[in-house]
Amino acid sequence: MFGCLVAGRLVQAAPQQVAEDKFVFDLPDYENINHVVVFMLGTIPFPEGMGGSVYFCYPDQSGMAVWQLLGFVTNEKPSAIFKISGLKSGKGSQHPFGAMNLPQTPTVAQIGISVELLENLAQQTPVANAAVSSVDSFTEFTQKMLDNFYNFASSFAVTQAQMTPNPSEAFIPANVVLKW
Amino acid sequence: MFGCLVAGRLVQAAPQQVAEDKFVFDLPDYENINHVVVFMLGTIPFPEGMGGSVYFCYPDQSGMAVWQLLGFVTNEKPSAIFKISGLKSGKGSQHPFGAMNLPQTPTVAQIGISVELLENLAQQTPVANAAVSSVDSFTEFTQKMLDNFYNFASSFAVTQAQMTPNPSEAFIPANVVLKW
Repeated sequence: MFGCLVAGRLVQAAPQQVAEDKFVFDLPDYENINHVVVFMLGTIPFPEGMGGSVYFCYPDQSGMAVWQLLGFVTNEKPSAIFKISGLKSGKGSQHPFGAMNLPQTPTVAQIGISVELLENLAQQTPVANAAVSSVDSFTEFTQKMLDNFYNFASSFAVTQAQMTPNPSEAFIPANVVLKW
Repeated sequence: MFGCLVAGRLVQAAPQQVAEDKFVFDLPDYENINHVVVFMLGTIPFPEGMGGSVYFCYPDQSGMAVWQLLGFVTNEKPSAIFKISGLKSGKGSQHPFGAMNLPQTPTVAQIGISVELLENLAQQTPVANAAVSSVDSFTEFTQKMLDNFYNFASSFAVTQAQMTPNPSEAFIPANVVLKW
């Protein structure tokens, strides 16, 4: 029913079904994961009036599972990209996987999907910054940084006439920086 | 061999094979797409020494196809997330789909995957700001960008001994770029 894809890795399409309405994907080496895509395979839709809440679960320093709500998938929005880097120091939230005691391995995190009534999903608030739409402002941020960089680098710019003789020092034409 | 997923929509796993080594997914209503995930299904790997270049193709105002290189998938990195919103006003780049004349519909864009030698892929430069999956954090992301920038800029580096006389052209000492 569900697939899970860590950006840069092979897709997973066979979650562990830990309860009738709960599915778990393992994320090995989770410290090196930035983005996770969770999607419905398109084979079986949710029953009418139901959808899935998507959780990220990772072991805290004492090996206890910390669960954070990332967001949702539904028949109307059957896939979502989440950014999980940056969540690892966050606080846990309420979650429906409580009694399961998934075995925690220090380097392995989980994506958990819980099938629930849509009206229940509507009352849950995902952690901030997990939805990838926040990448927009981020691009603007780097654009600003690069503008700053050009201002910074060009403050060191010299013309050949001003150069002190040192034939081995490498110089970069300023217009290359601008074009980039 | 390939899957394609528009964030928020159902996954596609059946591209149109337009040549022995070229695959195309249609992206209907592309103006409302932010992120696209391209991934190998895990069934058939690339032949040894080969990988896939991933292109975004959209119709310009006159209905001509504009192709932009987004990035790559390989056996070692079998999936990638790309941000295509923001690319739609960009310039086209060289691409290997030239002779195919894919029919252009105003609201439909394409993802094209071309299977090529890895050494050819290494010489191609994707459009800026398309890759999402390599984004670690503001710092790492900008560090990567700046590394790329330094590699790019230093390919233009000259020493004073190599300079053609043009006293008005501004130059930036390369170590300024490195220190930054």
